[in-house]
Amino acid sequence: MIELPQPYLIFLGDLRDKPSAKTAYGVRDWSPGACIGQWSLPECQIDLGLARMTPVRAHSEGARALLIGAAPFGGGLPENWISAILEALQAGLDIVSGLHTALSSVNEIATAAARCGRTLYDVRHSDYERSIASGRKRTGNRLLTVGTDCSVGKKYTALGITRAMQKKGRSATFRATGQTGIMISGAGIAIDAVISDFVAGAAERLSPDSPPDHWDIIEGQGSLFHPAYAGVTLGLLHGSQPDALVLCHDPSRYHMANYPNYRLPSLCEALDIYLRHGRLTNPRARFVGVSINTAALDAAEGAAALRNAEAETKLPAVDVLKNDLSPILELMDGASC
Amino acid sequence: MIELPQPYLIFLGDLRDKPSAKTAYGVRDWSPGACIGQWSLPECQIDLGLARMTPVRAHSEGARALLIGAAPFGGGLPENWISAILEALQAGLDIVSGLHTALSSVNEIATAAARCGRTLYDVRHSDYERSIASGRKRTGNRLLTVGTDCSVGKKYTALGITRAMQKKGRSATFRATGQTGIMISGAGIAIDAVISDFVAGAAERLSPDSPPDHWDIIEGQGSLFHPAYAGVTLGLLHGSQPDALVLCHDPSRYHMANYPNYRLPSLCEALDIYLRHGRLTNPRARFVGVSINTAALDAAEGAAALRNAEAETKLPAVDVLKNDLSPILELMDGASC
Repeated sequence: MIELPQPYLIFLGDLRDKPSAKTAYGVRDWSPGACIGQWSLPECQIDLGLARMTPVRAHSEGARALLIGAAPFGGGLPENWISAILEALQAGLDIVSGLHTALSSVNEIATAAARCGRTLYDVRHSDYERSIASGRKRTGNRLLTVGTDCSVGKKYTALGITRAMQKKGRSATFRATGQTGIMISGAGIAIDAVISDFVAGAAERLSPDSPPDHWDIIEGQGSLFHPAYAGVTLGLLHGSQPDALVLCHDPSRYHMANYPNYRLPSLCEALDIYLRHGRLTNPRARFVGVSINTAALDAAEGAAALRNAEAETKLPAVDVLKNDLSPILELMDGASC
Repeated sequence: MIELPQPYLIFLGDLRDKPSAKTAYGVRDWSPGACIGQWSLPECQIDLGLARMTPVRAHSEGARALLIGAAPFGGGLPENWISAILEALQAGLDIVSGLHTALSSVNEIATAAARCGRTLYDVRHSDYERSIASGRKRTGNRLLTVGTDCSVGKKYTALGITRAMQKKGRSATFRATGQTGIMISGAGIAIDAVISDFVAGAAERLSPDSPPDHWDIIEGQGSLFHPAYAGVTLGLLHGSQPDALVLCHDPSRYHMANYPNYRLPSLCEALDIYLRHGRLTNPRARFVGVSINTAALDAAEGAAALRNAEAETKLPAVDVLKNDLSPILELMDGASC
């Protein structure tokens, strides 16, 4: 499991469009206390609303790392960002990156980090996680978010439930399985970067034994219905051994994102197949709610989508960014060990 | 995809027990034409029945690589094998290894290989395979072997079907997904060593578009019912897009090998879940037979096991090492595109 130095100075490079800054916005929204300020190249047109500062100033105010909060098209490292990264290393900051290109593979950066005694955290590279799953049932409670597709709100749902639990004084930990989640929480395993043989084992390590009243709220990945990523989803499901599951869905979508020939499953199809596989490693697995992403709908459409989902699944349906999550938390109490 | 230099000189190290030499026996049995001879340290007690020869002699007789045909406990490289490997490099042979320890990570060996201009083939290391599955249906026909558990005969079944097809003059290629299969066929991808995000993509690359009368016979891995490896199995299933499936089963087993708390599924449970997932990427997927491993049974028990499997599944059941495979080949004709 990777553990990151916080707080961060968030670096935005020369980004011009918000979608490419998804990681930066996610960290700002869900972990504001971990963000000291923002820094960018002159061409940048993104403003997170944080104090603008240089690496030297951020370091003096307590920042421990420069977080590359951007996912440029293709996931590579733009040439013109390198000197900024070198400047941050020089100022005493470690570097946290979710780029496909490992910082440690860029000679100039690796050399400068060694010279400055700083650490490079390549969050997307977790192929060193190499333990085979034991299948042993662990103590404590686990909830896993699963989806009808990729990018339907599995991370936000897990974060929302964690926050709602903590507000009620309950013991709950968000367990990150993707790069943005890891940057938000400061720890986790990028599960889709683990060698396939070790995915379920990594999920077991991510959520170890815990006290009987504790819940780990695990960020799901992919979908069992996805032609490219279903294997990642299944390994994560088996290793997580969830007591409770929440199904995440975007009702404005009619086929898998980027795969127009692949239809979305119905909610009940999805409940059925997730439970069937979930019960292999935890026979007590059950669904405790449906998380509907109503961002693309108006108020009336959103309300109708929630009603339809409740009628179809007989489970509480919520938009985690808009609704009270108590109905889900109540069913979690019933699913607890 | 890795492609290996053949024929091999098979190296047995100082092995004393047959199970550790599983790879060597597999290559000798299924690819005798690829084996020039055997070589071992004086302490070795395994005899494959091949001509004994040194690397220098093997090279002069046409061998192109030393194949490390052993899986010592733990999968590491025994210290006392290193000088033998250096001797083979010196004699002009490449090295093929399925050990967990990458040969290229052993300084002495990497240096010697570079000096001699030879190549090190670490068959188990395929984390460089990095393409995302497209989900696009490919031309030609594919059969995938799947299992109720690991190590029930998926490789032997795929090899047996390939050989039976070829004997009838049909166009068929065995597609290897594990280290021994790769050594036997000389090409393939060790699918469980691929980064999880790219497993289905690697399976797509392994079995590309082919003519309408051609069959790729793909070696399965793991089991959808396995608490550690099911994700690998699912990614391979989705990327393979099989038209035909054969379910492999060992009737002498009552729980998953090494996982006594995990029961084996019934044959019909297995047929159902494999089809459900297989039809995501190929709606025409169907089962064409059951492969029963009767090695641990006497003749009467074996015959009963086949009868029971046929009654339960309504499919032809065979032991691929003992029976005629025509009933499976006939159903394959019906599944062809």
